[in-house]
Amino acid sequence: MVDLCVVPMGVGVSVSKYVAACEKVLSDAGLKTHLHAYGTNIEGEWDAVFAAIKKCHETVHEMGAPRITTTIKVGTRTDRVQTMEDKIKSVEEKLR
Amino acid sequence: MVDLCVVPMGVGVSVSKYVAACEKVLSDAGLKTHLHAYGTNIEGEWDAVFAAIKKCHETVHEMGAPRITTTIKVGTRTDRVQTMEDKIKSVEEKLR
Amino acid sequence: MVDLCVVPMGVGVSVSKYVAACEKVLSDAGLKTHLHAYGTNIEGEWDAVFAAIKKCHETVHEMGAPRITTTIKVGTRTDRVQTMEDKIKSVEEKLR
Amino acid sequence: MVDLCVVPMGVGVSVSKYVAACEKVLSDAGLKTHLHAYGTNIEGEWDAVFAAIKKCHETVHEMGAPRITTTIKVGTRTDRVQTMEDKIKSVEEKLR
Repeated sequence: MVDLCVVPMGVGVSVSKYVAACEKVLSDAGLKTHLHAYGTNIEGEWDAVFAAIKKCHETVHEMGAPRITTTIKVGTRTDRVQTMEDKIKSVEEKLR
Repeated sequence: MVDLCVVPMGVGVSVSKYVAACEKVLSDAGLKTHLHAYGTNIEGEWDAVFAAIKKCHETVHEMGAPRITTTIKVGTRTDRVQTMEDKIKSVEEKLR
Repeated sequence: MVDLCVVPMGVGVSVSKYVAACEKVLSDAGLKTHLHAYGTNIEGEWDAVFAAIKKCHETVHEMGAPRITTTIKVGTRTDRVQTMEDKIKSVEEKLR
Repeated sequence: MVDLCVVPMGVGVSVSKYVAACEKVLSDAGLKTHLHAYGTNIEGEWDAVFAAIKKCHETVHEMGAPRITTTIKVGTRTDRVQTMEDKIKSVEEKLR
């Protein structure tokens, strides 16, 4: 379970086309994603996810961004399998 | 525009009840939120949002967590108003 | 205990003058800080720290940055007092 | 340039021995690191750094932590080479 937020620098304030390019890289890699207002949740195996994140950086540089600063949150657990939906459902049940 | 991820420590691996308590604090504060698999998007004025985040820490400590580590992403812009939906729509349009 | 990383957008790739301005805001606020290669550690009371972070955003906008994205990590604990030096020393002792 | 903050969950509030184990993994991998109060700065090539971070997760799980949540900040730039010292020096010069 990963949360990714890619911030291109040196290309002005409007960065949605770079974020869209990253979304395409992630979906082309066959990863399950959910776009939210401050990043993208990604579900997948470690190596596949990080290979795709590297490709995001390469793609955004190729699109003309000279500098990128990215924040990644990674959650791993060995006690049980948990999907993105499980996590959200678990909180929502407690809210009821 | 804020993204909040509160991680209670010293209370075991299951933390959804603490996350649910934070959701309640945020909605009681009248803030617009969207829960995702690795945090919560929040829309609101700076002081209201950070007062609510402080209350989240107080609440989670009161519930018994001796230690908390939280990640907050904050975006501000002076050039134009942009909602959570605007940000997501702007990326989705480029994906089409 | 806070870690702060302010990223001005729409002002080119060179952002050290904005980071320097934030350092000044934090030290003018009487906070204890330690600058590292990817942010600044800050030690202080919640309200003082977050008031200073708000002032950092205001200052960076006034300097001409139309958009800012900031990452903040906040750690609080009720079990004991721990300084920045304590945290580092505790890890270094285990490394010996 | 990477900033890494590994948070083991389900092992109590004292996590310095896990952080120390990660420091060892990183230095065994030949990476240049700087430990600060809220994480570790790492300098190195993309693949080497992310292989080491994966090994940190494996090591911390083997030490008994059933769940880990990690924050990674990654900076890449194509315009010029910049070390950890360069970044800090650049800010400090502006502060003078």
